[in-house]
Amino acid sequence: MRTQVGIIGAGPAGLLLSHLLHLRGISSVVLERRSREYVEKRVRAGVLEQGTVDTLVAAGVGERLLREGLPHHGIELRYGGAGHRIAFERLVPGRAITVYGQQEVVKDLIAARLAAGGDVRFEVEDVAVHGIGADRPYLTFGGGERLDCDVIAGCDGFHGVSRPSIPEGVLTLHQRDYPFAWLGVLARVAPSAEELIYARTERGFALHSMRSPEISRFYLQVPPDTDPADWPDERVWAELAARLETVPGFTLATGEILERGVTPMRGFVAEPMQYGRLYLAGDAAHIVPPTGAKGLNLAVADVRVLTEALARFYADGSTELLDGYSAACLKRVWRAQHFSWWMTTLLHTFDSDDAYERRLQLSHLDYVTSSEAAATTLAENYVGLPFEDGPDGA
Amino acid sequence: MRTQVGIIGAGPAGLLLSHLLHLRGISSVVLERRSREYVEKRVRAGVLEQGTVDTLVAAGVGERLLREGLPHHGIELRYGGAGHRIAFERLVPGRAITVYGQQEVVKDLIAARLAAGGDVRFEVEDVAVHGIGADRPYLTFGGGERLDCDVIAGCDGFHGVSRPSIPEGVLTLHQRDYPFAWLGVLARVAPSAEELIYARTERGFALHSMRSPEISRFYLQVPPDTDPADWPDERVWAELAARLETVPGFTLATGEILERGVTPMRGFVAEPMQYGRLYLAGDAAHIVPPTGAKGLNLAVADVRVLTEALARFYADGSTELLDGYSAACLKRVWRAQHFSWWMTTLLHTFDSDDAYERRLQLSHLDYVTSSEAAATTLAENYVGLPFEDGPDGA
Repeated sequence: MRTQVGIIGAGPAGLLLSHLLHLRGISSVVLERRSREYVEKRVRAGVLEQGTVDTLVAAGVGERLLREGLPHHGIELRYGGAGHRIAFERLVPGRAITVYGQQEVVKDLIAARLAAGGDVRFEVEDVAVHGIGADRPYLTFGGGERLDCDVIAGCDGFHGVSRPSIPEGVLTLHQRDYPFAWLGVLARVAPSAEELIYARTERGFALHSMRSPEISRFYLQVPPDTDPADWPDERVWAELAARLETVPGFTLATGEILERGVTPMRGFVAEPMQYGRLYLAGDAAHIVPPTGAKGLNLAVADVRVLTEALARFYADGSTELLDGYSAACLKRVWRAQHFSWWMTTLLHTFDSDDAYERRLQLSHLDYVTSSEAAATTLAENYVGLPFEDGPDGA
Repeated sequence: MRTQVGIIGAGPAGLLLSHLLHLRGISSVVLERRSREYVEKRVRAGVLEQGTVDTLVAAGVGERLLREGLPHHGIELRYGGAGHRIAFERLVPGRAITVYGQQEVVKDLIAARLAAGGDVRFEVEDVAVHGIGADRPYLTFGGGERLDCDVIAGCDGFHGVSRPSIPEGVLTLHQRDYPFAWLGVLARVAPSAEELIYARTERGFALHSMRSPEISRFYLQVPPDTDPADWPDERVWAELAARLETVPGFTLATGEILERGVTPMRGFVAEPMQYGRLYLAGDAAHIVPPTGAKGLNLAVADVRVLTEALARFYADGSTELLDGYSAACLKRVWRAQHFSWWMTTLLHTFDSDDAYERRLQLSHLDYVTSSEAAATTLAENYVGLPFEDGPDGA
């Protein structure tokens, strides 16, 4: 079997890449270890940058997103007994975020790929990468199947097979582990506020978010070794109330908890994001702590760059953009690493904090919520800095 | 002997307080341990915020400052082989800094106090604080002299006697020591550039500054236990060249080194800044690492607040503003602590940095020099945020 681009992973990165390549007349096959049902239900990120929305809409997969997604023009920073709105409409006019679950993006992309006759294979076992150091890479999988291709795109996440298939010594791995995790909870209850609330308390951080007008999403800062089983419903709601009901008039609505899980907080970057004919995109190359809501959006940015590079390669044989893929991506990747670190340290409590650190943190929060310039730095990073390649890949 | 306000220390804080009180018709006596010659030659800060300049001018001690001070409308951040100007005139229109040595401010204030018949005593030994817990505080000094007063202002710096005279348990002391120091050098040579250059290199931080068109001021990040004697002239110039001659066309001019010294890098805040009838101002209450050029400017801000509080006290007997002195000062104090920490971590190398930290730092620098909002956060803090009490103490 042969295709132009072999794509490992049917998450947002792999699916969007396959779709964008299709729009450029480039063939691809997507190999996914999990079932379609699994990836369509996997609860992950839910905040799309303006540029991510624009990319999906321009690619023709934004119809439901525009209909069901919740555009947000601000977020709240809550601390010290008061809420402070970061008003995107004033600080970064014309740019907003859209709340729309990652699994919804995945559903839309799968539907689009299949409607266009795309080749997306689920429950594919034992994918292995071969020949990336030469010009004839190929993938093997299942019971001895083989996919020959010109290029392999590793879109298989942090724990995937792509990155480890790069020879030792090629990559520099940068990592930063945080001394806490997030307990994430999905609940069948209308959101208690219209916008996201990032709450900094002495008990730790909490985030009030949502997936739809009927489904709320919450996160609690917890110790890294937390077992979700230690958090029965009553404990979750009590802790969320303790961290969120800190301003007059705010009451947390509770409901059935549909899902709970613990996410480690980690920053990670593999440099470069490529080796020979293998190109890493999304979580396969980099992880951010979720505080800045950048993970999915970075994957989309990678895929845009890779699409342009492959389009050029197939147009005139030039590897110039492919050769520069990693360098073109890493500037944004490191910006997102820094922003995610910044948001994380701004809002979480660290066991190691002495009183000096706490005061610095509170002064920092006071500054971000009182200085137009400082608030703008948060807003412009949160809604997403412009793509280097222009508003719609031009 | 009796006065209204007993002031310990003839640095900028104590002298300015004495002068501002005089303008409000309030008497004071300043007691200084060192000689007049010593304090007039003590080389310290040299960057005055807009509000500091405005305060000195409004107080009638700005004539020479306006004539000889060097207004600067930007600074340069230099790293990665390029210089990036933070343009105050565009980012914070109407606000600038003025380069004018702290010892020049001290000279002007001493001259003004003496011309007005002010009582400033030098080489006063064994100053001790008494009775601050009650309504009749007094100072003793020299061979049994005694100064009775209503209020004592502790303007005697980090190592002064004021703060330690507050009973144990009253103050919370917040401290942060940095794992490096600054080697400061004063040289008889014209500045090599018109504006300050903050240089981040893998060898460590360097700062190109100046005191006048003929005198340059330089700083080098060095280990905290550095002995200035280990830095003969040739080594100083070679290291400054290695850290500053990193952009095309820049050549460091060298000259006679007039003075060198090592400054520890420390953040420190005593809370509250008052006890009974004793009020701390300037370095007696707080220290910042010098990267943000905030030390002298914070002292001026404290003195403005204390002047207003004392004027109210003598006008109608109300202690309301005096009681709120510390709270009124600390917001700005912590903002300066945070900004100084921010500038310091942005520009210095830390031995503990792993590659991840270095990349974050470089991404942060790229952001500050490319985002208008981020550059504005630097600029507005550097030129000085507005006083809470209005532009001229009104």
